[in-house]
Parts: sequence; C-alpha cells; structure tokens
Amino acid sequence: MDIEGYQSGYSLSQKFYKNADIYTSEISNIFHKHWVFAGHLSQVPKAGDYFTVEFDVESIIIVRTKNGDVKAHMNVCRHRGSQVCLEKQGSKKLFTCPYHAWSYDLDGNLVAAREMPEDFKPVDNGLHPVHLELIGGLIFISLAKSPLSLSNMQRDLGPLLNLFGFDKLKLAEQKSYSIPSNWKLAVENYQECYHCTPSHKEFAQIHAMAGDLKTFAKQKAEFQARHIGSPKMVEYSAYYDLAAPGQEGYQYDRNPLLPGNKSGSLGGKALAPLLGELTEYDAGASELMIGPVMFFLIYDDHVVGYRFLPTSVETCVCDIFWFVDEAAKADVDYKLSDLTWLWDVTTIADKTIIMNNQKGVNSKFYTPGRLSNMESFQQSFLNWYVQSINTVHIAHAI
Amino acid sequence: MDIEGYQSGYSLSQKFYKNADIYTSEISNIFHKHWVFAGHLSQVPKAGDYFTVEFDVESIIIVRTKNGDVKAHMNVCRHRGSQVCLEKQGSKKLFTCPYHAWSYDLDGNLVAAREMPEDFKPVDNGLHPVHLELIGGLIFISLAKSPLSLSNMQRDLGPLLNLFGFDKLKLAEQKSYSIPSNWKLAVENYQECYHCTPSHKEFAQIHAMAGDLKTFAKQKAEFQARHIGSPKMVEYSAYYDLAAPGQEGYQYDRNPLLPGNKSGSLGGKALAPLLGELTEYDAGASELMIGPVMFFLIYDDHVVGYRFLPTSVETCVCDIFWFVDEAAKADVDYKLSDLTWLWDVTTIADKTIIMNNQKGVNSKFYTPGRLSNMESFQQSFLNWYVQSINTVHIAHAI
Amino acid sequence: MDIEGYQSGYSLSQKFYKNADIYTSEISNIFHKHWVFAGHLSQVPKAGDYFTVEFDVESIIIVRTKNGDVKAHMNVCRHRGSQVCLEKQGSKKLFTCPYHAWSYDLDGNLVAAREMPEDFKPVDNGLHPVHLELIGGLIFISLAKSPLSLSNMQRDLGPLLNLFGFDKLKLAEQKSYSIPSNWKLAVENYQECYHCTPSHKEFAQIHAMAGDLKTFAKQKAEFQARHIGSPKMVEYSAYYDLAAPGQEGYQYDRNPLLPGNKSGSLGGKALAPLLGELTEYDAGASELMIGPVMFFLIYDDHVVGYRFLPTSVETCVCDIFWFVDEAAKADVDYKLSDLTWLWDVTTIADKTIIMNNQKGVNSKFYTPGRLSNMESFQQSFLNWYVQSINTVHIAHAI
Repeated sequence: MDIEGYQSGYSLSQKFYKNADIYTSEISNIFHKHWVFAGHLSQVPKAGDYFTVEFDVESIIIVRTKNGDVKAHMNVCRHRGSQVCLEKQGSKKLFTCPYHAWSYDLDGNLVAAREMPEDFKPVDNGLHPVHLELIGGLIFISLAKSPLSLSNMQRDLGPLLNLFGFDKLKLAEQKSYSIPSNWKLAVENYQECYHCTPSHKEFAQIHAMAGDLKTFAKQKAEFQARHIGSPKMVEYSAYYDLAAPGQEGYQYDRNPLLPGNKSGSLGGKALAPLLGELTEYDAGASELMIGPVMFFLIYDDHVVGYRFLPTSVETCVCDIFWFVDEAAKADVDYKLSDLTWLWDVTTIADKTIIMNNQKGVNSKFYTPGRLSNMESFQQSFLNWYVQSINTVHIAHAI
Repeated sequence: MDIEGYQSGYSLSQKFYKNADIYTSEISNIFHKHWVFAGHLSQVPKAGDYFTVEFDVESIIIVRTKNGDVKAHMNVCRHRGSQVCLEKQGSKKLFTCPYHAWSYDLDGNLVAAREMPEDFKPVDNGLHPVHLELIGGLIFISLAKSPLSLSNMQRDLGPLLNLFGFDKLKLAEQKSYSIPSNWKLAVENYQECYHCTPSHKEFAQIHAMAGDLKTFAKQKAEFQARHIGSPKMVEYSAYYDLAAPGQEGYQYDRNPLLPGNKSGSLGGKALAPLLGELTEYDAGASELMIGPVMFFLIYDDHVVGYRFLPTSVETCVCDIFWFVDEAAKADVDYKLSDLTWLWDVTTIADKTIIMNNQKGVNSKFYTPGRLSNMESFQQSFLNWYVQSINTVHIAHAI
Repeated sequence: MDIEGYQSGYSLSQKFYKNADIYTSEISNIFHKHWVFAGHLSQVPKAGDYFTVEFDVESIIIVRTKNGDVKAHMNVCRHRGSQVCLEKQGSKKLFTCPYHAWSYDLDGNLVAAREMPEDFKPVDNGLHPVHLELIGGLIFISLAKSPLSLSNMQRDLGPLLNLFGFDKLKLAEQKSYSIPSNWKLAVENYQECYHCTPSHKEFAQIHAMAGDLKTFAKQKAEFQARHIGSPKMVEYSAYYDLAAPGQEGYQYDRNPLLPGNKSGSLGGKALAPLLGELTEYDAGASELMIGPVMFFLIYDDHVVGYRFLPTSVETCVCDIFWFVDEAAKADVDYKLSDLTWLWDVTTIADKTIIMNNQKGVNSKFYTPGRLSNMESFQQSFLNWYVQSINTVHIAHAI
C-alpha cells in the first residue's frame, strides 16, 4: 500500500472517481500542468482562422496570426470576464467581446476599449497567453506557468511524424462523445485491450492485439521479424512513470493487424491514399501517445486521434479526430462514413461500458480489483497518476 | 427536546430532509442495517431467473440458483467494478461482466477470468454475497454484516402469511413512482391517514380509516366484535421503537372497509379470486409492515406492497407491487387496470403532495409542527428514526 | 484592497459568483434583509385575490384581506410544512393546505385543524407573517425581523409616484426570464449602459444614455435646461453605499431620449395614454430604483419594472413588469406586443450576454478587471455589496 491506499496491480479506490477535492487536484496537477492536444495546423490555414478547445471550466482560442504563427489565448475578456469568442470555429480579424466590445487582435493584444480611466493600460490587458507548441503539424497547448519540456519527444518522434507525413494531414472529421463517468475510467478503458474480445468484435476482427497474450506475442514477433529495419518499427517507452524528469511523456510502437487487413476498416480494406512517405501497406498500425490523455492510432492510410478531457468530476468527453493526407479528396479518395466506422462503433460501445463501470464503482461494496496481465499499460498510468496528484490537497478526501 | 432538536409529537426539523451528511448516516444506519423487501419467489421460478433491486448507489441481484435456492449478490464486478448485470430482470446461466467477461455462476462464484497473474485466487473473487431471507414467499435482503433477527417476526407472521397464501401469490404488476423529495416525507405520507379525506376521495370512499378518529374507533370496534376469533384479527405491534432488541420490526392489524365494499377497488367490488385459505370476504383489509420501509395492504383478494427507497438526499422512489393468487388468470380472473386503479390514482396524488411538502420544508421559515392525533404511527417512526441515525456523524450538520 | 480581495474600480473575484457559502450569506444579509418588490395593488383588487412571490427556496403569498388591507404570509403550512398555496395567482376565501386541510383565513390565522391534541393552540399556528409596505401602489415585502425604514424614500418619492400616477397603474404584462448565472451578473448587467451600443441597437436608437459619456453629458445638460422646474427633473441618489443608515436605498433621475422619440418603442412612437398627471411627452425617461434589486424605467406612457432574484448560486430570474394607466384598454389604447417589444428583445439579448459572462468568470484565469467610466453605478453596487455580506461567514470560502 502507498498513497491513499493505492496498491500497484489493483484498480483505484472509489474516492478517486467521485471526490470533488481530488478532481480539483487533478485539474491543477495534471490538466493545468501537462500538454493537451488542441488540433492540427490544417484547421487554421489562413490568418484569422481559429477554433476553441474546452475542458473543465476552461475555453482556449487557437488562432493563426497575421505573420503566420499559431497562438493560443484564454477565452476570457480582461474587462469583466465574458467569453470573448462564442463560436467553436471560424475566421475573424479581431476578437471583439460580445459584451462591451473590448477588441483584441489575433495576437491577443487589447486594441480597443472605450471610456476607460486615464491610467488604464491596454498593454497590460491582453488576453492571457497560453503556451503552444507544434509537433509535426500537431498543435499542443499547456496552461502551466513553466511547461514540461518537449525536447526528448521532438527528437524521437520527429522522424516518425515526418515519415507518416503528419504535417501534411488534414482533419477529415471530428466527433465528440460525452461520457457520464470520471475521465480516468474513460482513459483506462482506452489503455487496455483486455476488453476488446468481449466488447469490440469489429476491432477484434482487425487488430491482433485483441487476442490472448500468448498468441499476440507470437504474432508481434513475426510482424517484427518481417519488418526488421523498417523505420516504422522503432519503439519509445517514455510514458507516464517512465518519462524523463521535466519532460512530457510519450510512447510509440507498431503492432500487427490480423492477416488480410490493410487498415482499420470494415473488412480491413484500404480507406484512403497512403500517408507521407509510405509506399505500401504493412498490415500494421502504430500506437502513439503524447502527454497523458492524447492517443493516436496510425494506420498506413489514416490517423485516428483520441483526446480525453474532464468536464466535471463525474463527466468527461472523448473527442475523436480522423486525419487523412491533405491531398485526399472526400468522396473521391476516401468515404467519410467508411473512414469513421470502426472507431465510431467502438467508442459508442465503450461509452456504455464506461458508464456501467462508473455505476458499479459508486457502490459502497466496490473494492479495488486485481488487474490482469493484459492491463500493464493501464497499471503504468495508475502508478503515475497517484504520484501526480498532490496528496496534500486530498488528505481529507473520503 | 432531545436529539438534534427533535421533539416527540412534532415533525422533524429541516436539516433531516436536506442535509447530505445526515443522508449518509441514514444509508449506513437504516438502509444498510435493516431488511429491505426485494420481491416474491414467484418472480424467479426457474434456475437462472433473476431480477435486480436498486437504491441509493447500490444494485443487488436476486437469483434462483441451480439447486433451487434463492441468493442475492452485489451487482459489482470484483475486477474493476463494472455492474455485472445490466438488465433489470431475465434469465442467465452465468453472470458475465459486459466489460472484460469475468464470469460468475448463479451462486456468485468466479468461474472465468482470462490472463490473470498466477497468484490470483478466483475463490476470493466471487460477487459480494448479500443476506437473504424468505418470509412466506417474500424475499428480503440485508446489506448488514450481522443482520437483525427475523425470528420473532417469523413466529408471529408465519400463520398469517399462510392464511393469506403469501407463498402462493404471483406478482401481477409492479410500478415505480419517482418522487422529488427526501424518502422520509414519502414514508411519513404513507404512515398517516390524516390526509386521506382531503386528498384521497377514492380511498376515503372505501376505507373506514379515512374517517375521523371517533367514528373510525366505533367502526373498528364493531368490526372486531363481528369477527371475534377470526385468525385475521390478531394484532402485532413490534414496529419501530416497539421492536424487541436485535429483532427486525413488524406490525399487523386488520381494519374495516366502509359498508358495501369487498376490496380496494372502484365501487368496492371484488377484484380477483380469494387468497389462500380464505372462503369469504369480511369487508376488511390488513395492514402489514415488515422492516422500516415496507408496507403491505392485504385485501381478501389481492395484496398491495409499497416499498420506499432513497435515490439521493432529495429524491426517492415508491415501488408498488400488486399480488394475486398464483392461479388467477389475467383478463379471466382479474383485470389489471381494475386491480391497480386505487393505489395508482392515490400514489399519483401523493407524489404531488409530497413534492409540495418538500418545497415548503425547504423554506428557512419552516419549523417543526405539531402532529395530530391521527399521526401516531408516524410519530413512532420519527421517534425511532432520530434514535437510529448515528448522531455522532451528523454533529456538525446544519 | 479590502474585503476578500475586492478592489473598488474592479469587477469581483470569481468566488463571489460561484461559492455556495457566499450565496448563503447573500440570502441572509441582502435578500432576507432588504425590501423586495412583490407587485402592484391592482393585482389584488378584491378581498381574497392573491399572488405569490418566489426566490431562493422561499414562497410568499400576497393577499387582499376582507377589510381591504394587503398582507403577506409565508407559504408554509405550520403543520408539516407543505406549501399551502400551489397556484401562482387566483382568488380564495381560505388558504387550505392541500395536504391535511389545515385552513388559514386571509389574515393568515389558522381557522381549521382537525383532530389536534387538546393543548394545541391555533392562535400560535398562523402562517408566518411577512412585513409589507406600500409605496404608491407598489407592494414591497421584507423577510427581516426589523426591516429597514422606508421613511426617507416615502418622503422623497411620494410626490413623484403621485405625479406619474403609480397608484393608478395596472399590470399589463409580466414575463420571467431565467438566466443561468449568479444573480449579481444579471444585476450588474442592468446597472451599466457601457454594453448598450455594442449589444442593444434597439435601445441605442431610442435612449441617449447608450451613447458615449461626452455626448450624453451634453444631451443631458440640454435636456435639463429645457425642462428646468419640471417636477420630473428632481434627482435622488440615496442608493447602495449612499443610503442613510437604517434606511432602504433608492435613486431617481430623468434622462433624455434621442430626438424624435416619445417612448421606449419601435420608432419611438407613443405606446399608451399618458400616465398620472402628465399632459405631454417630454422625450425623457426616468430611472427609479427601490431597494437593491428593483429598477423601474418610467416613460411618459408606461412603466417597466425589473426584478432580479436568485434561484440558486448559479441561477437567477429576471421578472419584468409592464404597467400602463389603469384606464387604458388593451387593443384599444395600447397593443401588448408593441408595449413589451423593446425590453423583451433587450432582455433576451442580455440573457445570452450574462450566460457567457458566467462561463468566462468560471475560468481559473479570470481575474477582476478594470471598470470603465460608464460603469460607475455598478461600482457603487459592488462597493456596497462587499460591505453588505457578512464576511465572517465566508472567511473560508475559496
């Protein structure tokens, strides 16, 4: 036993899924500290293009500025606090607050505020800036004062993201799935494939990973032998408690699909043009994790991104992003309903599973249960999690 | 004045209907300690037949096992806590968790769990067992470690339940009425007939009890004189603060219907075949209470059961069960809409009454009010209630 | 800096808009202390006529008694606390509780309660009385034990209310706008016209006040010069922190409409017969405030009243009352849709504005912002507010 009764190898105790003080600590120590995926550069091609990211009580504006940079600002007017930007995406020359018309330029500077006292300094009243970094074409933001370093990640993942052409992706579709559970139950669900065979027959017909450990180990060894030397086959395990001090966590490896499958689709058929520098299908799919709650699944012809964000102590949202090559044309090179099929059906099933998990966890008779050998990644998450939250704040939490 | 400002003969103060800490104490000291009505044996005729009981944050599975016993299990998977059984009733050979397919047999033993560590012991990971007892054909459960004894109750009520053929009933209908109030306001409403004349004209046309105390006393004396020696006419008053130490509380007596009424129906007409060993209508109806929140009304041709359960501090549910003789055939021997009419219309009216009671009790100007002479049973409940909850836990409750 | 980090000239910090303990203190120190507008005498013309006022968890009955007085009673039965009167308005001879039929006369005396113990004293069990005062024909109530004095207000406002014929008004329409925000964000919104130009083009086309300070000052000076000596042109500034000790606050002044406008209507056209002793339109409108959350806008031909009341810490309601001369006939002398147009469209717009203000204020990045020169009245409110709430109660509020 260590922090708050947590024992490695077991699920968390109930309070971590229900207690409001623990939730507050998570927001501070995880979501306001780590890097959060915002979207892709292709979503803001021109100066003034913007979209917003929302979680917990926060809203952040991502915008392309006049000089071509991408910046992030808190969506909170410096006057009396109204949200400045009410639309989730669009294009603007100025962010003009809908309340009193204080206006901010694309860089967040306050450029208009009527009738203010003489000693008022517009220069001190810009939108609060938010740290933003690009990784390939992916936009990440951090609400921390001193964000974690991304240098190790950039060094390791840079060549891979280049190989798959991440900076030449376009967002084909984005869907939000609201889940009536604590965010960790949703993240834990994503982290293990122990439930894939019983719950996701669609996935299990395509991905070898859904099988039992012994069979999968054999299939993975054969897959690795078949592709020795392929640049896709590197592995990085700097995630959660394995992350270097001061560095954001990340993870990458590639896993086999079952024979006959090229992509994550009905029947395993190809879905879209090959990505980046790829010239052929290898019947594999890569797992890529960046920061604690952002996961990518990289097929040879498309990328699916999963972002888990809390909205309250017992509700969260799973946002899914489907990316294809920027040159691919809808209805010509890919069909949207085919592209989104697998992970839409899988996530709809998971939403029910996770909801019923929360219901059971709420019982006074729930006790932490032993994890299986197929839940080792989740175990790493839990070990890191209990160390991450500030236990001082939650000393009195029940 | 005694506990927490409670004064016998007056209604409770506001905090007992609104305070979350008091609610927590009630769950521990009342609902996890006393016996709760689950249903009737006829609901699980064959091995594998099951139904669930839900209150507060708990869900309990009642199931007929292979050897013919009826058992109760907590509906919480021992792995990561998902509810194991999502349907409210049905028939199963195994309870297989919808998450990772851990499977439990009908006795609650874990019989399948893939890929577990070598030292994992299935025998220690069965569904948490719940105490279950049969009284006549009635199924009661207790979440207590050491439940209250039912021996006195079995001794006293056994012959009565036999007389009315409780073990030969069948559940004709069950309806749930969710009420936006603290559970006690709903229970108190059931416990007194002071409101029957103003609020329930349908009931008041049938039951003598709705009348004023003096008239009812006369009618009851005449009724008792008319039926001297009838086995129906015994009385047991071991309820609430009158229960023997260590014994669950119970109560039984029989009261007259108004002249011309045979049963609790429109016009007082007979509704179904006579129950058990009965051979004629006696123009009476018995009140039977088992445990603190389960009340039966026994007419000569049907039984109505009322169960009050909390769902949160300011919401509860009233579940009504209509029973007839197991041999009675729907549409032939009884008409369902006639059977359920009286207590459906009465409970719909009470739902509004209770909701408006909660609204008024929420006022800072509400103060405990004097109870009438027609609210003596409710007074007994309140006396017992304030002794039952653990006042240490609620010392700081406002 | 002074109380709880509040700095005059800046908006409030986040906790004042979200914290439940602060809300509790506001209810005690503001809403149970100050006078609250209930309605107008014309709403209860005959003995037995009544309507209810609701805020927070309270409901109050306003009723015309047999001798012609108007009285206010708490809508809480003295028996077990049910609301006694479920309808929002109507006419009754007695208030008979829908639960057990305890009956109260129009003066609130308990006149019927069956089957009570012998020592029960009906005289001690009347409906809790609520202080009620008339100002012109306006009905105000106070839940305080010792209400603030209205003597200064009666002295100053009496002649004005007489001039505008307030005691000869009739309520033409009342609408409720529920707003998903703390009540103060709604009140602050009403208190400043800094947002009028960007947000309310309908209002800004009619009211000079929507313009910039310099232009408005010039227009107001000209308006005052034009109407020197008019009894409408007095000014009283006894509001908020300017109120005399022990006296309820109030405010009155008159402001110009833009040229060509007679009233608050589409195109500025007249809407109804002139009020009271008025004989002509003066192209002005008076602001009248009585107590902290009741504002009247007095046009020459109608009066609009705004009442802001909390319903929970993050929700409130804005009730708008449209009054015309009692002799005016609907569809003949005024058209209801024309009468309500301006402030209906304005309030619908404000509801969205205020909701987005709350969203932004919820952010951990929100900090109190500098107020403009057009927000001086709001500043007075905020200065008073932080002094009004009992900071002892909120010492530990976050």
